[in-house]
Amino acid sequence: MKRGEIGLGLEDSGYSGMVFERLSSLHIDIGDLISIERNGNEFTGLLMPRSQIGSDENHIVIKLENGYNIGVCIDERCIIGKKKSSTKRRRKPPVVRDVNPNLPTVSIISTGGTIASRVDYRTGAVNPALTAQDLYDSVPELEDYANVHAKVLMSVLSENITPSDCTKLVKKVASEIRRGVDGVIIAHGTDTMGYTAAALSFALSNLPVPVALVGSQRSSDRPSSDSALNLIGATKIVGKADIAEVMVVMHGETDDSFLYAHRGTRVRKFHSSRRDAFQSVNDYPLLRINDRGIEEISEPLLRRNAERIVKVKPKFEEKVALVKTYPGMRSTVVETLLDDEYKGLVIEGTGLGHAPDILRPVLKKAIESEVIVVMTTQCINGRVDMNVYRTGVQLLDLGVIPCDDMLAETALVKLMWLLANTKDNREVRTLMVTPLAGEIGMRSEYSQYHISSRKR
Amino acid sequence: MKRGEIGLGLEDSGYSGMVFERLSSLHIDIGDLISIERNGNEFTGLLMPRSQIGSDENHIVIKLENGYNIGVCIDERCIIGKKKSSTKRRRKPPVVRDVNPNLPTVSIISTGGTIASRVDYRTGAVNPALTAQDLYDSVPELEDYANVHAKVLMSVLSENITPSDCTKLVKKVASEIRRGVDGVIIAHGTDTMGYTAAALSFALSNLPVPVALVGSQRSSDRPSSDSALNLIGATKIVGKADIAEVMVVMHGETDDSFLYAHRGTRVRKFHSSRRDAFQSVNDYPLLRINDRGIEEISEPLLRRNAERIVKVKPKFEEKVALVKTYPGMRSTVVETLLDDEYKGLVIEGTGLGHAPDILRPVLKKAIESEVIVVMTTQCINGRVDMNVYRTGVQLLDLGVIPCDDMLAETALVKLMWLLANTKDNREVRTLMVTPLAGEIGMRSEYSQYHISSRKR
Repeated sequence: MKRGEIGLGLEDSGYSGMVFERLSSLHIDIGDLISIERNGNEFTGLLMPRSQIGSDENHIVIKLENGYNIGVCIDERCIIGKKKSSTKRRRKPPVVRDVNPNLPTVSIISTGGTIASRVDYRTGAVNPALTAQDLYDSVPELEDYANVHAKVLMSVLSENITPSDCTKLVKKVASEIRRGVDGVIIAHGTDTMGYTAAALSFALSNLPVPVALVGSQRSSDRPSSDSALNLIGATKIVGKADIAEVMVVMHGETDDSFLYAHRGTRVRKFHSSRRDAFQSVNDYPLLRINDRGIEEISEPLLRRNAERIVKVKPKFEEKVALVKTYPGMRSTVVETLLDDEYKGLVIEGTGLGHAPDILRPVLKKAIESEVIVVMTTQCINGRVDMNVYRTGVQLLDLGVIPCDDMLAETALVKLMWLLANTKDNREVRTLMVTPLAGEIGMRSEYSQYHISSRKR
Repeated sequence: MKRGEIGLGLEDSGYSGMVFERLSSLHIDIGDLISIERNGNEFTGLLMPRSQIGSDENHIVIKLENGYNIGVCIDERCIIGKKKSSTKRRRKPPVVRDVNPNLPTVSIISTGGTIASRVDYRTGAVNPALTAQDLYDSVPELEDYANVHAKVLMSVLSENITPSDCTKLVKKVASEIRRGVDGVIIAHGTDTMGYTAAALSFALSNLPVPVALVGSQRSSDRPSSDSALNLIGATKIVGKADIAEVMVVMHGETDDSFLYAHRGTRVRKFHSSRRDAFQSVNDYPLLRINDRGIEEISEPLLRRNAERIVKVKPKFEEKVALVKTYPGMRSTVVETLLDDEYKGLVIEGTGLGHAPDILRPVLKKAIESEVIVVMTTQCINGRVDMNVYRTGVQLLDLGVIPCDDMLAETALVKLMWLLANTKDNREVRTLMVTPLAGEIGMRSEYSQYHISSRKR
């Protein structure tokens, strides 16, 4: 499906037989709002194409107002009616807005993801489609908070973001900052937003202004979409908050009561669908923002300072792997990575930083071949401490580097970045355990632990 | 170090030079309680051998009362004193206890781990060492709650537990149940306790009595150890609670206020060191136990019924891999698993169940070669729903099986178990998405989500 195109012919939509006849006799097209009366129940929604999966010839698939698709089985007694023709989106000419000198200037860079997406009527699934301009047009409130420059850098679902995409993004953010904007927003898919946030945190240092990644857990065609509020919140923060770090700005609760700004190296997607999916790990969020304003929760590493010159090291080594251990694991996977000349290996081990003994010979071989091997924990919360158990001590003796309370995902990105920007492996090992962007914390606090609110 | 042996000669302990001379002239041996006065500070603790790492010739390593080791640099002005000789543990003859007919009968099977461990004075690290009898001897309160049969099945740190160890354990638990006990306790390392709990949950069905895995986050030589309370709680539960499921019984809070019993297929170690590290995911715990008794939180799938005959399917297919995806991942790792004739693959994807597009060809190849490929989410909380995004739909079309709200670790174990006990791959695919032991939930509740208590 091409960008901006929504109306599809009924012929291409997978309907056939009696259902096709009835729809075409009523001049109904894909995307039209229709009603179906069946056994006294009325269903109203947008006509969707037939999905390849799960519906037979006699079903009509409609998208209900709540965003969900249902299939309705059609027989002769069903009454089908057309309520409204699909509104084909027309591309508006770019609006030239007056610059308001009292407002900050903010760049929005669109990379794709749900926040910049529309439903693909061919598969019934969500696709990245909107341009940054569309994004801006759809949230007109933005002009109350900032003069916004919106641009599209790429259009990918975030599971497909690669280290080289991150390099492109780092360079783009740096060039926007050098233009003198007051802050930069990146619209990004939520799936791997935590990884990209870590990448920007290491690759951009000495920031003069804040950089916020923002996404959406529900697409903008659904009434529960969080995209507008996240975008407005991020605009307020990068426009005026006294902080110059890379952050993720997303809902702090499932309702619209407040947002959090999390530090880019400390944040993780912890829920597949909730709007408050992002949480800081082993750390507190940096800011909370609601109707009353922006509140500082943790002291930032850097305050806003327009005089500061951003430093950019945009490269990432692609040959770094994340390997989660499990009972019964064999060493073949790690052997393969060595054969493939990987340069770094992040083990997501168990507990305080352990891995099955069976991996020890291959890890020894890896370290002897100058591969950097680091240890994180699949517990996610808490620290790696490899001095407590014999097996931990043995791995330390081999040269495995303990990553303290760093997230596995952040350790992966940090190692990719260090290996691309540091010549000497000794320096990589030293920097790996040195906090560079708040990724390692000195102390743990009780209430940083993620606990379900529990049924008491 | 041999089991039960604690006193080591000073000669074997790594000390040399001036430090060795001073210790031996004072007749100080490894394990003795000593004091060191240095610059007006006095340090008291057990003399430990010199670790290979981190201490030079002039350091003495002592274990403080709080369980931590420190190195003290010795010079001529330091005053060293011996406070108490090491008490070598003597093996007590097994006590023949009178059976109390008013108490339930409980089997404790020891597999190793911290709950059954002592500090290894050679490396300064913790090693599995205690027998089940020692375990019993060290918690004499147990005899107030049950007639306990304690036995050692194996002695391994849990990161080294293999599927075949699980088979051995399943058989042992079944044979204890067949002997007519009122409940079975398994002492197990915490690192992979969640995986083993899932293994027992699938391999043992139609249970007449409860089975509880119990561990300890702090070794029993530390005042903060949780081993006694967890063991007592598990004994109370398997002795009398009206439930017949596989559970994990561990602290529910960092203090000693209460324990939770979590369903074996729904529990995960979420913190590397806290005593309340274990949490139910996408579900509530089953029971809470404190001084006032046992409280039911969720309805169990099965109630206790001594007449019921346990069904045992103890085998697990070892050629099943867990693969966590990440940005920049390549397909080589999965290629290797195919070459190695793996039969099952659990993808720990992102968000609602996505994986980088680059993996699609190799996943297609895997499924065409009759490898079962299933999808879980690294978000941990929430459900996989592959109908929302194009990339999810594409994976579904290939034949990737969505695991709903099942934990990745549980999906791994379930697939290992199904592939070893089901001939027909079609049946494996059907059973994979059918709840067999509470591993898939029908609805999600708001307060099941793990959220940090936050600094407000």
